[in-house]
Amino acid sequence: MDGTVRFLDQTRLPNEEMYVETSDCTVIAEAIIALQLRGAPLIGIAAAYGLVLGVQRYKHAPVEKFLQEFEESKLLLMKTRPTAKNLFWALERMEKSIRLTSIKDSSMLFDIVQREAASIHAEDRAMCDAVGKFGAELIPQNAIILTHCNTGALATGGIGTAFGVIHTAAQQGKNIFVYADETRPLLQGSRLTMWELKNNTIPSALITDNTAAWTIKQKKVNVIIVGADRIAANGDTANKIGTYNLAILANEHGIPFYIAAPSSTIDLSLSSGDEIPIEERSADEVLFISGKRIAPDGVSAFSPAFDITPQQLITAIITEKGIHYPPYTVSLTKASGI
Amino acid sequence: MDGTVRFLDQTRLPNEEMYVETSDCTVIAEAIIALQLRGAPLIGIAAAYGLVLGVQRYKHAPVEKFLQEFEESKLLLMKTRPTAKNLFWALERMEKSIRLTSIKDSSMLFDIVQREAASIHAEDRAMCDAVGKFGAELIPQNAIILTHCNTGALATGGIGTAFGVIHTAAQQGKNIFVYADETRPLLQGSRLTMWELKNNTIPSALITDNTAAWTIKQKKVNVIIVGADRIAANGDTANKIGTYNLAILANEHGIPFYIAAPSSTIDLSLSSGDEIPIEERSADEVLFISGKRIAPDGVSAFSPAFDITPQQLITAIITEKGIHYPPYTVSLTKASGI
Repeated sequence: MDGTVRFLDQTRLPNEEMYVETSDCTVIAEAIIALQLRGAPLIGIAAAYGLVLGVQRYKHAPVEKFLQEFEESKLLLMKTRPTAKNLFWALERMEKSIRLTSIKDSSMLFDIVQREAASIHAEDRAMCDAVGKFGAELIPQNAIILTHCNTGALATGGIGTAFGVIHTAAQQGKNIFVYADETRPLLQGSRLTMWELKNNTIPSALITDNTAAWTIKQKKVNVIIVGADRIAANGDTANKIGTYNLAILANEHGIPFYIAAPSSTIDLSLSSGDEIPIEERSADEVLFISGKRIAPDGVSAFSPAFDITPQQLITAIITEKGIHYPPYTVSLTKASGI
Repeated sequence: MDGTVRFLDQTRLPNEEMYVETSDCTVIAEAIIALQLRGAPLIGIAAAYGLVLGVQRYKHAPVEKFLQEFEESKLLLMKTRPTAKNLFWALERMEKSIRLTSIKDSSMLFDIVQREAASIHAEDRAMCDAVGKFGAELIPQNAIILTHCNTGALATGGIGTAFGVIHTAAQQGKNIFVYADETRPLLQGSRLTMWELKNNTIPSALITDNTAAWTIKQKKVNVIIVGADRIAANGDTANKIGTYNLAILANEHGIPFYIAAPSSTIDLSLSSGDEIPIEERSADEVLFISGKRIAPDGVSAFSPAFDITPQQLITAIITEKGIHYPPYTVSLTKASGI
């Protein structure tokens, strides 16, 4: 019998906790496209397991067939979303795991593939712990923190990236309060981050995205921390739409703006953010909320899923390797290299 | 038979065009609280007519009774919303209209009250035309404009304030494109402004509020123009939550940030924005969209309806008297005085 992958359909949260169990790589690919599985690190893990599902039926087939199916599943998964580096990183790592061996037996190759996916998953868990620990050093006692989108356990294989920092600071007994941007259009902040904040009993409040500036000023926010989908060699960072806005606000109010992400999010092949492909999603994601039309028939919407924050607005980038400061061309190259 | 007021319930737009007809001042007060009637200038007009409804039953009563009912209706209407200056301005003007006469006859006082409400309405229409004309001078050919909330015919007695400027520029044959912030929590941008843009066939697209920064950068927005709910003597401006955010973005990207409003929005009694009362609305407006819960049970939300934009971020303030530049303490005093 085939192995299966079981995942939480995040589009149903917070109203419903529905799990999907599948042995089909296509279901994983579609879940990534539909954002049932989302968050850059989790996309990488999901793609790795998706690839395992894609080849498991061929573990007794001739090795050529196995490799051909591997390629097809990989291409299918690669096409799901363009921005998050972790997707491509995970798929390339899976590929390397079998390319770097002289083994020509499907069953043994399948074992390698399976182990590699499990490693990616386990390493992500450890990565979150390390990001959390490094990042928590930057969170002062009595911090008022603002975050965006969802970067917690739902988005990763562990406690999260930016959320992992928040989580670790809270675990250390620091008295913190978190404002979460709701993060339109798909409300990952209200649906997912508030769910994780509540589950971890971290004092918090939800705000609409356009309340961020006023909240920073009135509530004396002193740290903004978010995740990342791809970081160029110079530090320019693609992350959920609205991140660039927040970085400008941090700069205007003289507070630090931190990115927290695994080093696998760093893409040294791109010299700046100008080269990062930005996914534009369906206008309907803006024109409808929970299936209900909120704008008149026939109007247009501009719906980029991400934006690019220029490196000069980023105070530091936290990875599992440590805290990286400008000049990022130097610090990120080092972080990627170790 | 009593006179009636007929108004469009704006909370039902764009899905339903439902009109409410009433002869009851309380219905008007409740409609203002519930945002069925909204937009600072329209709130002023609605309050004036509400006052007419409040006293019409007493036009044959003894003058003391008439004046007592006038006061009670006025107090009821004053308590509806705290931020928009136009509400208080209109009610004070209504009161002055009967206080400044020696007439002691209810029926004649009622005529005065009725005429004053009609004047406030008619003047608002003329105000919009003038704001539109002055403001359109600031809109270049091929302008890419960003606006927030709703400031059009729905929010005023005429073509609108910030929207009046957009409307006039389009009427003048200028080739413009408008990005409208959806304006969470109550989506006045998507529901109302997109409806007005569509009805006026002005090329446009809707964006989520957090897409503003990226849109300004990517789509080369060159003007931001919004309305106002109250303007302090120094130019600090209260307007729909998210306005302060946009003003920071305009400043960061080196583009002008304009406020368009009637001079009745100026409150010379307040030296700065620190003194403007900011309405905080129910957390449920953030936690629910179209009646559907979007965040987990039991979480908190911070829901200010307005924010204050400091005067140094405002390029100019457009009223029916002209275009007012800094120092606003001088230019606004002049605008209020004429």
